[in-house]
Amino acid sequence: MTASQEAVAAAIETRRERINEAIAADLPIGDPERLYEASRYIVDAGGKRLRPTVSLLVAEALCGIEPLSRDYRQFPTLADGERTGTETSSAGSEDGPEIDLMTAAAGIEVIQSFTLIHDDIMDDDDLRRGVPAVHREYDLETAILAGDTLYAKGFEFMVESGAPPERSVRALRTLARTCTSICEGQAMDVAFESREDVSIAEYLRMIERKTAVLYAAAASVPAILVGADDATVGALYDYGLDMGRGFQIQDDLLDLTTPSDQLGKRRGSDLIEGKRTLITLHARERGIDVEELMTGEGSEAALEAALERLEAAGSIDYARRSARSFVRSSKSNLGVVPNNEARDLLGGIAEFLVERGY
Amino acid sequence: MTASQEAVAAAIETRRERINEAIAADLPIGDPERLYEASRYIVDAGGKRLRPTVSLLVAEALCGIEPLSRDYRQFPTLADGERTGTETSSAGSEDGPEIDLMTAAAGIEVIQSFTLIHDDIMDDDDLRRGVPAVHREYDLETAILAGDTLYAKGFEFMVESGAPPERSVRALRTLARTCTSICEGQAMDVAFESREDVSIAEYLRMIERKTAVLYAAAASVPAILVGADDATVGALYDYGLDMGRGFQIQDDLLDLTTPSDQLGKRRGSDLIEGKRTLITLHARERGIDVEELMTGEGSEAALEAALERLEAAGSIDYARRSARSFVRSSKSNLGVVPNNEARDLLGGIAEFLVERGY
Repeated sequence: MTASQEAVAAAIETRRERINEAIAADLPIGDPERLYEASRYIVDAGGKRLRPTVSLLVAEALCGIEPLSRDYRQFPTLADGERTGTETSSAGSEDGPEIDLMTAAAGIEVIQSFTLIHDDIMDDDDLRRGVPAVHREYDLETAILAGDTLYAKGFEFMVESGAPPERSVRALRTLARTCTSICEGQAMDVAFESREDVSIAEYLRMIERKTAVLYAAAASVPAILVGADDATVGALYDYGLDMGRGFQIQDDLLDLTTPSDQLGKRRGSDLIEGKRTLITLHARERGIDVEELMTGEGSEAALEAALERLEAAGSIDYARRSARSFVRSSKSNLGVVPNNEARDLLGGIAEFLVERGY
Repeated sequence: MTASQEAVAAAIETRRERINEAIAADLPIGDPERLYEASRYIVDAGGKRLRPTVSLLVAEALCGIEPLSRDYRQFPTLADGERTGTETSSAGSEDGPEIDLMTAAAGIEVIQSFTLIHDDIMDDDDLRRGVPAVHREYDLETAILAGDTLYAKGFEFMVESGAPPERSVRALRTLARTCTSICEGQAMDVAFESREDVSIAEYLRMIERKTAVLYAAAASVPAILVGADDATVGALYDYGLDMGRGFQIQDDLLDLTTPSDQLGKRRGSDLIEGKRTLITLHARERGIDVEELMTGEGSEAALEAALERLEAAGSIDYARRSARSFVRSSKSNLGVVPNNEARDLLGGIAEFLVERGY
């Protein structure tokens, strides 16, 4: 069963608040103040906290905990008998040790924030979450350093989960490899801008690295930390990966179809910057001269005309169907998780990601 | 006893080659090629590999291993009986488990490389290690991403030491906190450029964070990984910290006194960029108008004149004495290490750092 849209929206909203409180507590405005203010600037400007919300729900689902009934800072883990993997617990207790699940979830979120700050510099974007990008509000130096600071904090947070050390090391390995992958994906994304022959397969490899792996980490890291077996960890990784693919394709769609004020950044920026998306790659295959679509320099009229042509070519529909197909595939991995309310919410979040309007 | 200058130079040179081989093996030119080429660009352009050399020597000294007699990839660790700390080994063996010490040392070096790439962007420096800075040879986007990639690789490398998990977690905690501290120090350094009232105490706090903590990590992480007790880990941290302080002050001196071609970057760049150094802070205390020193826009004549005034004020001498004093303090921590050839080399390296000509 998949949770209702209302239940999913409520689950996201409640966890968003708790995650915000945790970040405010664990990432205080330290010294130097300006550096920490800049580091918090985009974090505080908004964001749905979808990735850490997935992390919290995964742990609740795996441990069969009624959603929101436990303190995420002292979260139970699986007892030895509940797991089928080959890993042995160094704690060796009957009722697994308690962990600080929240710090791990917050670690995923601040890594996401670091990538936003650096990506906005690279794409020379002016707006993010409805406010100036960090390199506009502050300056280039501060934006680079704010990103670098959040990067370190992501690892600092992940180190402090209090999970048995072998699980912590495994979670940190996942996080480090995820960061490498994100850099590779972002480099591909930038390189694609000056290439006209990008294939759909290449695009899918790019979004896997740039976007999907962080969802995969968000879903698999809590499984590692609570002591799930390898098959469960792997299935949750795949759940996150396909969800992340769907999320990115939906993001590409929203960039075209959502008004700038709702989007929190300029509508049509992908087209203007020459970003390759599933939409424009499909359109090119249909014979549309994608480079010519935005000759109007991004005026609303030019954007509407471009959108009309992409719709007529079936490219918008194609991307919508692809995103939904990835979400179906994502949800198919949830069979490893006990059937409970948190699992229903995980399925619902995957659907939310491709149905959301912004 | 402190090793002779010749012995120290030879120890650095031999380890430099091995470290370079390890980095070449562990950081291959992957996909996307341009990203990995840019990531390797400054790494391959040179550098003495002083930090990882310290790491290798610390492990040799603690384990009483004759220098260079063992494969750094399968390095012995301390057996339980050899340690006095409260930590318990999860391996529980008589002869500690073997670790990949080299990957940990290489992790420290690639973190250092990441900071060079991002610092050069922030300072808008054109040259590094005698070649164009990454943002000049490639572009801003690629330089930010190359730095971010090395950042992740530093953690990936550190994760793979094969040390018992509780030690790995502790080493990763040290690395993450070190990275946070480096960002704080760099932010202070940048902020100081627009402040005329920086005190010597503030300068010392800045270089501790920006520079010294990475030497402290280089010296203490191998101690953690081989299983040294807490007192030893702490003393080696302090050894690295004071060595790093001395290193940075010597760096400031060299920036003024070494010809550009030997320095690998423009001589006098600190003065030109308005960086605060122990030299200029001392000079201001002696009534010299430091802001006026470089009115000649960095000509060799202006630089010579500035140097002469700084020498006359005793500021060069003051910085030299400070650097040497930090090195004495650094070496005083080596008493926790068994008396052997590697320890003598550790003392010699601390001295080398403040005697070196470039």
